[in-house]
Amino acid sequence: MNELLIVGSVAFDTIHNHLGSHPRILGGSAVYASLAASQLAPVRLVGVVGKDFPREAVDMMRSRGIDTTGLEGADGETGHWEGRYADDLTSRETIQTDLNVFADFEPKIPAAFVDSPFVMLGNIAPQLQLHVLDQITDPKLVIADTMNLWIDTALDALKELLTRVDILVINEEEARQLTGFHHPLAVAEGLRALGPETVIVKRGEYGALLFLDEEIFCAPAYPLKTVADPTGAGDSFACGFLGYLAEAGHTDLRQAVIAGSSTASFCVEDVGIGALIELSREDIEARIAGFRALTTF
Amino acid sequence: MNELLIVGSVAFDTIHNHLGSHPRILGGSAVYASLAASQLAPVRLVGVVGKDFPREAVDMMRSRGIDTTGLEGADGETGHWEGRYADDLTSRETIQTDLNVFADFEPKIPAAFVDSPFVMLGNIAPQLQLHVLDQITDPKLVIADTMNLWIDTALDALKELLTRVDILVINEEEARQLTGFHHPLAVAEGLRALGPETVIVKRGEYGALLFLDEEIFCAPAYPLKTVADPTGAGDSFACGFLGYLAEAGHTDLRQAVIAGSSTASFCVEDVGIGALIELSREDIEARIAGFRALTTF
Repeated sequence: MNELLIVGSVAFDTIHNHLGSHPRILGGSAVYASLAASQLAPVRLVGVVGKDFPREAVDMMRSRGIDTTGLEGADGETGHWEGRYADDLTSRETIQTDLNVFADFEPKIPAAFVDSPFVMLGNIAPQLQLHVLDQITDPKLVIADTMNLWIDTALDALKELLTRVDILVINEEEARQLTGFHHPLAVAEGLRALGPETVIVKRGEYGALLFLDEEIFCAPAYPLKTVADPTGAGDSFACGFLGYLAEAGHTDLRQAVIAGSSTASFCVEDVGIGALIELSREDIEARIAGFRALTTF
Repeated sequence: MNELLIVGSVAFDTIHNHLGSHPRILGGSAVYASLAASQLAPVRLVGVVGKDFPREAVDMMRSRGIDTTGLEGADGETGHWEGRYADDLTSRETIQTDLNVFADFEPKIPAAFVDSPFVMLGNIAPQLQLHVLDQITDPKLVIADTMNLWIDTALDALKELLTRVDILVINEEEARQLTGFHHPLAVAEGLRALGPETVIVKRGEYGALLFLDEEIFCAPAYPLKTVADPTGAGDSFACGFLGYLAEAGHTDLRQAVIAGSSTASFCVEDVGIGALIELSREDIEARIAGFRALTTF
């Protein structure tokens, strides 16, 4: 039993960046997360799409070993996000968000998925994350992501969620917003006081910090020749991390953080899911070795 | 022969931060740099002060083994900088800069110092950095720092300087300004094309990147319970780094980066030079071990 349940958005993204415009490419947190984990562990995807969702996209995910039984087809159109990145890729503006079928999404976990030992609650409303968690019989490890929108609009539900997750994965800026602190140790203390035993703070181009009991582990971002598109990097990180832990025999959270960082580093090298589709277990292993060369002294 | 020549500013700082106001405390790049290196190698200080510079400050530096023969006493007042930090300490505004005797500073290297094998050209005008370099007979390792002011106002002299230094130590923001690139690999390539074989990019609260031939080393910043004052952190880093290389038997640049990061991490724990005055070789060694625990996977 090492199945990894992933719930989140399945959507089309229209991305404008320094390379051009990329209309209606496959995206969404659950897609990035599922592809990222698919080389490491059996993935069970839960999400909702509209009648316009292409068969080829489902087939592609299945060909990567992703179980799409939990991908609900609803009346209406698939969610769509359009945004523009600054040339240095460190910031982006949303041009338009069409929730479409995602607006009424109430994740139903298929009977075959309720025994999932590993659970990734991607960045959706904390009420929905709680609703998913209620349906899982005996999760072994639960990870959640969140964002500023939920800190602003659903703080009570988010706080309830945080008492029920093992590991919170959160952007540094949002972690600062949620705790009111700036420096990493204070931020981590503030987050862990809300419930999660382990906290991972994502720092974008500066890597990630893992806080585990009294231990801190600092992982860099991998320096890349080409950075094409940071969309999905956080989801790729989280499910590279969780996939590594779900993979037989791994319990070291530090190594899992490096596996997640490796997966995310491949993700950003291409636009959208382009690099994740090609990603092999060997690629991940080779980049883990690269991280070792980068940090050993 | 492992003497370390340090040239830079010797000044008073008036610092306003979240802890209060700290009027006219001892500061300047050469003071931070000299104190940072003083536990590691014999330091030779070159700078200029006014008639108001207190005897006690000179005595304090001498008691730390710093040779102050090159500290010129000029008619007039010692330089003074006043600034205010944002509460999160990631930005600061200058309220006033009084160059005073520093305005006419022409560094004269004492005869006893011209054989210095290790040279730190602190952040002063590149013309002055070149003038210093011209006076050193056979430097073994030359490091320079610079800042946006010189990129804006003295680019030609800066470019000449860069053809004559071994290692450039520069803030990430200024490295991006100087090269026109954003991502680390492009920035490093741009900087090395200007001359220095080795480049260290300082990333403030995110640590530092070392670029050496085809190798890259990424050092984190040390997560601290208390961050009091980042003034002088960059100078402490550079001369903790250089001091470690000047100390007998060390040639590993990665370890030197960690030694510099350790020294800088102590510097920011107290206001001004407070922590550097107390710093021992054992403290540095203990924190190097802390960095190992922080990064090993």
